[in-house]
Parts: sequence; C-alpha cells; structure tokens
Amino acid sequence: MIGRAFAPSHITGFFYAYDDDDSTKMGSCGCGLTLDDGVITEARAADITEIYLNGKLSSASTTRTVIELLANRPVRVDSKLAFPVGGGFGASGAGAFGTALALNQALGLKKTYNELSYTAHSAEVLNRTGLGDVAGMTMGGIVIRLKPGTPFILDRIPTGQRDIYCIHFGPISTKSVLSDPKEKAAINDAGRKCLKSLIKEPSFEHFMGLSRQFSVSADLVSGRALDAIEAVESRGGMASMAMLGDTVFSTIPDGLEDFGEVLKSRISLTPAHLI
Amino acid sequence: MIGRAFAPSHITGFFYAYDDDDSTKMGSCGCGLTLDDGVITEARAADITEIYLNGKLSSASTTRTVIELLANRPVRVDSKLAFPVGGGFGASGAGAFGTALALNQALGLKKTYNELSYTAHSAEVLNRTGLGDVAGMTMGGIVIRLKPGTPFILDRIPTGQRDIYCIHFGPISTKSVLSDPKEKAAINDAGRKCLKSLIKEPSFEHFMGLSRQFSVSADLVSGRALDAIEAVESRGGMASMAMLGDTVFSTIPDGLEDFGEVLKSRISLTPAHLI
Repeated sequence: MIGRAFAPSHITGFFYAYDDDDSTKMGSCGCGLTLDDGVITEARAADITEIYLNGKLSSASTTRTVIELLANRPVRVDSKLAFPVGGGFGASGAGAFGTALALNQALGLKKTYNELSYTAHSAEVLNRTGLGDVAGMTMGGIVIRLKPGTPFILDRIPTGQRDIYCIHFGPISTKSVLSDPKEKAAINDAGRKCLKSLIKEPSFEHFMGLSRQFSVSADLVSGRALDAIEAVESRGGMASMAMLGDTVFSTIPDGLEDFGEVLKSRISLTPAHLI
Repeated sequence: MIGRAFAPSHITGFFYAYDDDDSTKMGSCGCGLTLDDGVITEARAADITEIYLNGKLSSASTTRTVIELLANRPVRVDSKLAFPVGGGFGASGAGAFGTALALNQALGLKKTYNELSYTAHSAEVLNRTGLGDVAGMTMGGIVIRLKPGTPFILDRIPTGQRDIYCIHFGPISTKSVLSDPKEKAAINDAGRKCLKSLIKEPSFEHFMGLSRQFSVSADLVSGRALDAIEAVESRGGMASMAMLGDTVFSTIPDGLEDFGEVLKSRISLTPAHLI
C-alpha cells in the first residue's frame, strides 16, 4: 500500500515565537498564507528507512522525526518539492505533514487529521525547522495563528484565490535566527503588535502591509529583499519577505522581474490532504 | 462593491444534538462530508433587502437572519444552489455562510472567517434549519464535530477527493424531526455511539458504515432510502442517508440508477471561501 499526500507551501508574513520544553506546546502566533505549489509525498513500507527529496537521498531531519514518531516499521518516503528548502516556504513542515498523512494511509495507522498534524508540528519544533507552518497548512488560505503549539487555535482572513509572485535569493536558517535571544525579543515585540492590528482589520491588504512593516521592525529583511519590495511598491503592488527565508512575496510580478526568476503561484484554499 | 462566495454542500452521516438557549452554544456533534457542488452567493448594497434563490425571490429565513445580524443597511443577496433545499445537503447553512462571507466583502465589515462562520451557525440554529453544517463547511473533507456550537472544535478523517453519488427523493424538515423529544433521544443515543467508534477508527469506510448503522438505529431512514442503500450494497458499494433529507449518498452509482436521477459529485477538500 502506498500513501500519497499533498501539503501546500506556507509563507509566514509576521510571527512571534513561544519556547516550551514540551514540543506540543511550543510554536508561534502570527499570520501566513498557503500556496498551491507545495510538496507531494509518497510513503510505503520498506526494508530500511530512506527519505528522498526530489529523487535524492536526504537526511531530512524533520521528516525522519515524523517517521520515528509514527511508523512501526522501516519506510521509504519520497517528497517532491515545488519550492526551495530554506526559502521560507515551509518546505520542511510540508514534507513532515505530507509524510504523516501518507504514512497513516500506507500503514493503516488509524490517526485523525489533527493527530497527524500535531505530530508533524512536534517534529518541526523538535528540529527547530519551523514553528507555525504546519498549523497554516491544516486550513489553507490566509491563516491566523492565535495560540502557539497544539491544539491549533486558528482563524482566517476571508479570501479567494489570488495570484502571488515570489522571488527567492537564498536560504535563511530558522534555527539560527531563533537562537539569538536579542533578535528573538525584537521579533516577538514586533509580531505581537502586528497580530493585534490584524485582528482589528482582517484584510489581505492589511496583512501585506503589516508583514512589510514587521520585516523591517524585526530587522529580518535583507538589503536585496528590501530593494525588491520597494521595486514592487514603485509599480503599485504590495510585497514583503517570507519568514524565514530570503524570499520576497508580492501581489504583482512587476518590479520583481529585475531581480531574477519570478515564481508565480496562487493562494491555496485547500489544506494538506491525501491524493 | 459586490461580494461573492462559495460554500460547499455538507451531508451529515450521523450526529447528536445539543439544545441551548444561547444560539452560539447550540449545535450538534457528529461527522459529515462536504461536496464540490454547493452554493454560490452574491451580495451587494441595495435599497431594500431581497433574497433570491436560483433567481426567485425567497423568504430564506436563515439567510435573512444573517443579514439582520451582520448588515448595517439593506442588501440584495442572490444564491445559486447546485442541490435541492431540504435534501440534507446543508443548503440553508451554505446559503447563510456564503451570505456572511459575501456581505463581509461587499460592505467591508472587517470580520474574520471564524466570526462569519459563527454568525451563520447562529442563524441556522435560531431558524432550526441545521445544527452542524456550517461547522463542516469551515474545513472541507470529512469533518468530525467534537463539540456542539461555537467555537467549533473539529477534527477530520484524512481523505483525498472521492466521487460521491446521490439520489434525492424529497425533503425532510430538520425542524420537525428535532422537535420530537422521543425521536431526539433515540438519535442522540445512536449518534454518541457512532462518534465514539469513529474516533477509534477514523476511516472513510468506517464513517460510511457507521452512518448506515445510525440511519437505521435512529429510525430516520425512509423505506425508499433503505431500498436504495441495499441496492448499492448488493453491487459492492457503501451508502447511507443524508441527515436530514430523504437523500441517499453512495460510493458508487450502481444500484442507485434504478431509483431515479443520480447526482454525481466529489468530496470537496476546500472550505467555504470568497470567489
């Protein structure tokens, strides 16, 4: 039996982080959006446990943790990613969540959707690869994370499908950014203010504006990313930086094109699911 | 400004009901699935409040309550339904939820997705047209309702898209069934047992089996519906009755075809959203 699952990409616009010794309680609050381009994962029983990312054998620590937490035997997992790892697209969370869903199907584990998502979340925080992406992927759309950790307490900005354009300059390690206490305090202060403001006016435009503001006040935006954001704004669009990756996401392609290859995607209204 | 929204159909397989004087606390637990065919709703400011269902002026009490709860001025609402009202497809809930989403967009109400869904749920229970459909529509897929009323506490059976076939014999009034205390006690007893069993084995097949069992033990299945269910089973499929409508939903078309026009749809993985 092969299990197959899709998990959308997830870009966080702003956030604040909570530490906890219990991996189920640790996580982040904030807001992000899911994209139609994501990760497709296949899982099946095997003689030894191996994980392949885009066809290459990989250590994939977060996915490996999901396997350790769920599987009762060795498995082979194959994930195909539409977006780069470390780009702020939540690739590790999407791979982990897709693996949980696919393993449940392949091995007949009899877990519910929530249980599988909580396992993927725990694997993310245990490996310090993400704090809120899996939560966003359980809903789809523009997802507001109201409490850190599990059970997820979420809300959404009402939305339809919208084109989103991205440009990716390179990876940022979630682990390294969140390890610096000073940096973390600045992030959390800025993130809290943004969430309060968003709840009062839960619109896509306000989310984009707050994300832009957050990337600067939390001192997370790279020079290159800020140049690209300003280029979009000069053409009448809205843009910000994906948290955490050296990636700009934008409402229009104009302006981005001068900086390299533009990836076109769309807000995904569909949560992670079996395929 | 015109607001436009889509809400999927929602078929409950089994449930138990909770009464409460507070409409936000009243609702049902149970499990159901959403379908790709649903309700498309447009809303706009107007001189007088009018609601049109499939082009015909309608009283649409539940949608009217949503308008009263949300709109600060007269509005025109147009809903196009892919499925019959009273057939157990959650048409009134889909119309109400779609209206809430569309009004929020048309009038710039600045509500979150949860707030809009809770308003639609309250309107449903105030009008006794449904108890759990709106909750299911906030998720998509095969949705487990763990607590009645709001905030919705939900889980899901992990699923992909699957074809679902329906045959509709006629309406059943949710209001009349749930008004009889004896009938309600039998329903609640059967529904509780089904939910306990489903949590232990959250699979599509188990959901279908439990729903079938519920329709008989809660004494809700019509003779015609039971004939159709048995005809499907004799062809190797699984079927049950939509709660509450004289409608059979099935994993295969075979068997249903002898009873009338078969409606083909698919499990919707996408919750209600703007379009």
